Amino acid sequence: MGAVLAAAVESPAALWCERAERLAAEFARTAVARDKAGGTAKAERDRLRESGLLNLIIPVEYGGAGLDWHDTLYLVRIISRADSSLGHLFGFQHLLLATVRLFGDQWPDYYRETVRRRWFWGNALNPLDTRARIRADGGHWRLHGSKSFCSGAMDADQLVVSAIAEDDGRLVVAAIPSDRPGIRINADWDNMGQRQTDSGTVDFHGVQVYDHEILRHPGPLGSVYASLRPLIAQLVLTNVYLGIGEGALAEARTYTRRQARAWFSSGVESPTQDPYVLRKYGQFWVALSAAAQATDQAARLLDAAWSKEDALSEAERGQVAIASAAAKVLATQAGLDVTQRLFEVTGARATASAAGFDRFWRNLRTHSLHDPIDYKLRDLGEWVLNDRLPVPSFYS
Amino acid sequence: MGAVLAAAVESPAALWCERAERLAAEFARTAVARDKAGGTAKAERDRLRESGLLNLIIPVEYGGAGLDWHDTLYLVRIISRADSSLGHLFGFQHLLLATVRLFGDQWPDYYRETVRRRWFWGNALNPLDTRARIRADGGHWRLHGSKSFCSGAMDADQLVVSAIAEDDGRLVVAAIPSDRPGIRINADWDNMGQRQTDSGTVDFHGVQVYDHEILRHPGPLGSVYASLRPLIAQLVLTNVYLGIGEGALAEARTYTRRQARAWFSSGVESPTQDPYVLRKYGQFWVALSAAAQATDQAARLLDAAWSKEDALSEAERGQVAIASAAAKVLATQAGLDVTQRLFEVTGARATASAAGFDRFWRNLRTHSLHDPIDYKLRDLGEWVLNDRLPVPSFYS
Amino acid sequence: MGAVLAAAVESPAALWCERAERLAAEFARTAVARDKAGGTAKAERDRLRESGLLNLIIPVEYGGAGLDWHDTLYLVRIISRADSSLGHLFGFQHLLLATVRLFGDQWPDYYRETVRRRWFWGNALNPLDTRARIRADGGHWRLHGSKSFCSGAMDADQLVVSAIAEDDGRLVVAAIPSDRPGIRINADWDNMGQRQTDSGTVDFHGVQVYDHEILRHPGPLGSVYASLRPLIAQLVLTNVYLGIGEGALAEARTYTRRQARAWFSSGVESPTQDPYVLRKYGQFWVALSAAAQATDQAARLLDAAWSKEDALSEAERGQVAIASAAAKVLATQAGLDVTQRLFEVTGARATASAAGFDRFWRNLRTHSLHDPIDYKLRDLGEWVLNDRLPVPSFYS
Amino acid sequence: MGAVLAAAVESPAALWCERAERLAAEFARTAVARDKAGGTAKAERDRLRESGLLNLIIPVEYGGAGLDWHDTLYLVRIISRADSSLGHLFGFQHLLLATVRLFGDQWPDYYRETVRRRWFWGNALNPLDTRARIRADGGHWRLHGSKSFCSGAMDADQLVVSAIAEDDGRLVVAAIPSDRPGIRINADWDNMGQRQTDSGTVDFHGVQVYDHEILRHPGPLGSVYASLRPLIAQLVLTNVYLGIGEGALAEARTYTRRQARAWFSSGVESPTQDPYVLRKYGQFWVALSAAAQATDQAARLLDAAWSKEDALSEAERGQVAIASAAAKVLATQAGLDVTQRLFEVTGARATASAAGFDRFWRNLRTHSLHDPIDYKLRDLGEWVLNDRLPVPSFYS
Repeated sequence: MGAVLAAAVESPAALWCERAERLAAEFARTAVARDKAGGTAKAERDRLRESGLLNLIIPVEYGGAGLDWHDTLYLVRIISRADSSLGHLFGFQHLLLATVRLFGDQWPDYYRETVRRRWFWGNALNPLDTRARIRADGGHWRLHGSKSFCSGAMDADQLVVSAIAEDDGRLVVAAIPSDRPGIRINADWDNMGQRQTDSGTVDFHGVQVYDHEILRHPGPLGSVYASLRPLIAQLVLTNVYLGIGEGALAEARTYTRRQARAWFSSGVESPTQDPYVLRKYGQFWVALSAAAQATDQAARLLDAAWSKEDALSEAERGQVAIASAAAKVLATQAGLDVTQRLFEVTGARATASAAGFDRFWRNLRTHSLHDPIDYKLRDLGEWVLNDRLPVPSFYS
Repeated sequence: MGAVLAAAVESPAALWCERAERLAAEFARTAVARDKAGGTAKAERDRLRESGLLNLIIPVEYGGAGLDWHDTLYLVRIISRADSSLGHLFGFQHLLLATVRLFGDQWPDYYRETVRRRWFWGNALNPLDTRARIRADGGHWRLHGSKSFCSGAMDADQLVVSAIAEDDGRLVVAAIPSDRPGIRINADWDNMGQRQTDSGTVDFHGVQVYDHEILRHPGPLGSVYASLRPLIAQLVLTNVYLGIGEGALAEARTYTRRQARAWFSSGVESPTQDPYVLRKYGQFWVALSAAAQATDQAARLLDAAWSKEDALSEAERGQVAIASAAAKVLATQAGLDVTQRLFEVTGARATASAAGFDRFWRNLRTHSLHDPIDYKLRDLGEWVLNDRLPVPSFYS
Repeated sequence: MGAVLAAAVESPAALWCERAERLAAEFARTAVARDKAGGTAKAERDRLRESGLLNLIIPVEYGGAGLDWHDTLYLVRIISRADSSLGHLFGFQHLLLATVRLFGDQWPDYYRETVRRRWFWGNALNPLDTRARIRADGGHWRLHGSKSFCSGAMDADQLVVSAIAEDDGRLVVAAIPSDRPGIRINADWDNMGQRQTDSGTVDFHGVQVYDHEILRHPGPLGSVYASLRPLIAQLVLTNVYLGIGEGALAEARTYTRRQARAWFSSGVESPTQDPYVLRKYGQFWVALSAAAQATDQAARLLDAAWSKEDALSEAERGQVAIASAAAKVLATQAGLDVTQRLFEVTGARATASAAGFDRFWRNLRTHSLHDPIDYKLRDLGEWVLNDRLPVPSFYS
Repeated sequence: MGAVLAAAVESPAALWCERAERLAAEFARTAVARDKAGGTAKAERDRLRESGLLNLIIPVEYGGAGLDWHDTLYLVRIISRADSSLGHLFGFQHLLLATVRLFGDQWPDYYRETVRRRWFWGNALNPLDTRARIRADGGHWRLHGSKSFCSGAMDADQLVVSAIAEDDGRLVVAAIPSDRPGIRINADWDNMGQRQTDSGTVDFHGVQVYDHEILRHPGPLGSVYASLRPLIAQLVLTNVYLGIGEGALAEARTYTRRQARAWFSSGVESPTQDPYVLRKYGQFWVALSAAAQATDQAARLLDAAWSKEDALSEAERGQVAIASAAAKVLATQAGLDVTQRLFEVTGARATASAAGFDRFWRNLRTHSLHDPIDYKLRDLGEWVLNDRLPVPSFYS
């Protein structure tokens, strides 16, 4: 099945890929148990820290692996096949590094420190939650309030936080250590899916933020280049969704081959010969492979845009936005279909808690609500029908 | 919303309906917690025992409520809206009473005792599990082996069990007390859905079965009339599925109205004005209401067939089979759609474990694998295209 | 197959049903040729005139058949199975008679004359086309302008026309003879489907309209009772759609049984044994039968509302509106599916022009654009989510 | 919109592309009229002959354009957007040239003559029609019988014909001039779609076939390399389907922008602002663009396989087969969806015969029945679930 799925994508940097596959196999062994337990995947996060995989997108000159987005995102997919909570956190590591790069001039320092100290970055940037406020305070800044959906904040070394400036209401983004006094990261994430993403609440009680920690171009509205940030976010999510779908297909396949039984009136010996079962596997794969191609293509467009820096035009950025949106729609649809219908090719006994097959659907369903697919399609329609490129926002 | 759903069905016997609605409201308050806990819903099962609802299908002359199948099944739907595990067990009570009626001549005794002793019946009849064996033993019988998927056996007063006769391989069905020596009911049901149905394994270690406990016409192949049994099973399941879908719609509706937020780029103030949200509610309801009409119509056909007893013709039985199969397809499709997509009308925060909204999908997904919808459609196609009525089996 | 479809509905007045079936069989023989030719089905319209079927909804005391809406609409479905152009015109006859009844006090005269003179009524009421104007002219009225989509105006004896009053912009509806000087009915309907409905343009050049021809309560806004008119229109369309779907299924079935071939790699001898073909027939039938049940149920609600006359409440009217909208959605979806996919159960050779199988899709696709299904679903969503009944308009 | 669609594909050889676009624009002007007329598109076929486009796949050293399959197939798509009958014939030109190349050693002669004499090749190879027979006759051969579905035989200069050898039942394929005595090409193609493909019957009355006209390796069973032939056939069809879908989207878009009207209760001024219309355009494009990516990717795999000649392995051939099958499924699904639903974004008036919008659906529906998508999905399922590559046949 590895071969089956690999057929859909081009080989990324082989060494890192192999390392990610090994870690994924390790994570897979405990994925069902950790899904039930919820909470923080401390051991697995440390394994990621040790592996060097947290530095994939960091250029070689700063000590990183220097992979491009195409390859980095493919590795996010590999991890997500085994465990989409870890895939999410792993993907957000790179999103947050990109955020620092795109929004702040001081990114080289953060990149070097990330490599040196094996920083795992956490998110406290939720733009739809406007409760966090910041104000100038004697040359520095003071942060109050709360943020929800702070994926990966728990056990993070560094946080990217956003807040509304009290004086003029503008968006302020900063990169700060998670152990800064006044920060309280709550273990209050208890949702039906993505259970080990620690996507809970972070409270800020008069947290000091140094001026040099402020990222000066807090896009997506900062510049065309900075507005690549939401597109990277979209592609991270898309690769997580795709990984979930591919992981579900792979586990279903193993189960059908080893444990499922032919239906008594099917007239065949094995479910592997059942015409309806075969047709469904065909459908699952066609949809996932189409989504994978669209996702890889979007990643290549992102790489081209990423390398243009400030020369990036709105039209070029728009092409990445269109390709990312289409990929996300395809990955969501394909993933929801396979995670829901895999039971129809594995049968009633595959609902045993020990198998944990429902986690695929719960994970994808939870994560796919990040932004509504209907509005993604509307945005695409605006472009197809009215030649309007998506307006940069934190979701497009 | 009660009004909304009631519009789709005709009012059943009002008193019992009201009593069922009251119990359903009570069960709803703890449904999320009990879904997480799994295990046996002892307190709720006792509430059903006290309520008299376990006697709905028993004729008045034997002390029962004397309801017809249409009304009985509608009450199964009411309970299932609140808690589909309890709905399942409650529905199976009536299925097992029907089994005794259809397969055995001694049913009047069992009916009277059921009323007098407030018996809750449990199932140990799984026809696809052929591990249980029975043999003649000095005028009586001796039962060995195991049965899986024994919904409601735990805490049952009486069991309907099936076994293969060791001498000639025929199917033997009996109705026996659950506390008969040698019976071991295992608390080994731990699946992703229908978590309080206790659908685990029952072991029989040389269990004595008295000759008068043997049901002599162990259909569906016993007689045309006896072959109504699988159709009642199908309609019980269909009403459980429909209840799940209707319950999901009702809870989603409350959440959208009270807690959901409009998407930031939707241009509307409230999700209750969102064109995509409204369209989805329309879709959910159209599909559920069509399924409800088909289900009610099938129940009416069943009532007509039920009243014919041995005068029932194969063609008449076939009409019930066709109507039941169609209803099951519609209820499954409508239910899977609403339980999967309700999150698209409630949003990301509705994935909180406290809301427990994923249980609808887990419950329906688990239960809908009882027999494959593809083969149900194939059977219907045999009839539409080739004029072949479904061949009676334990699933058609 | 007659039996197959009849199973979904209750038997209407048997005599008229038989007569309609005979006419339908007659129309079916030339349906393919007449679809290609387009134009006016003069001979078939005259056969309808002779048959007495144009008077179904007219009460017995005025010389009509006195059928209720449920039965009348079922006969519209019978004709539509064979030829949906004729079904449309036949259905509009009853819609226009209902219009006269609901909007005007002089309806008894029109009803008696319809029976006596075998009037076929035509439509010139398109509410979205506001080009026709009317003004007072010496105690009577003068009509100018044009109307598009005037189904059945050609060869009609009487027309129901609408116009905007020049002085105050209100809607004026009148019933006038089609040979009144100044009326020009254009043979300009040349569309991809419903090709013999003559749904072209009618021009009015200073046409005199007598005061007694004005219908005084030109709903749907005239009164609650008058606002049943659009619901009758919806149910006529729904029955036409359902007839198209049922007709397509019946013809496909005959073709699969007699002429289709098994696919070379299917492993079966005949397409009637093909698992994918059988599943599709199952799907077609389940969807059509659910739509038929919903449609019949809506018709029964309409009959109840119709009999209440001015005592009809908005809530009761609303129930008919909800049921009609749901039925229309179901019939449209089921019909589009079967008319598009019937080719997958008949094969490549079934695309021969001589078979004419594409007419089902062309007819339904054309007619189903009358009002958008998306807005129908939105209206239903408003009711499900927000308790808002559909606002009466010419389309709801 | 050109730009919209071009975004999905890479630019092929620019000169030929431009020439194809010009011809396509020319064909588009008469496409609706020629669809109605049916028959042979003699003038347009001659325009293709003059254009040099019939030689795209012929290597430069034989006087051709030397394009690869990726680019050649993209040009088939361009023509198919405007007129899928011509796209089909144009695609089959290249399929038949590939057939000569793969099955016969004498292909260089045929290639040179094709360029020199501007030959348009026609098809008489339908493998499912086994009525044509061939027998040895004094050092040469004699051909009798008939072939159906002979697309492009009419007005062809050369035919590729297949027949069953009378002595041993093996498949014999030959390339012969269409004016050889005894060949009768019947103008009997009158189907609902692809109306100018002349896919009628060819009769052979004792036609002499010279031994040097026999193609010696009449795959797909001849060799692994020869078995690329059905995959080229699949990709030609896939590009025709994709062209139909893209053409439908482009025409719908123009109509929505210029002629459609907002629905009266939509609350927007123009259909270009309607949320449901926008969402549908998004859906159409996402599906078509995914199909285009999969199709282009399959073409690139074909090019790689094509260049390997006899070194091609079964596994490599299998990868092309899998990619082609997936692309065909995606193009069929996306195309059927857009051609059926384009009316929902253009409205009731867009059903006018003058617009001819139904031809997209009729063309795709007709052509997509060439081989059943269900069996394509089953074949893919065999690979995904059971690691079985598609068995080479004339359809896989």
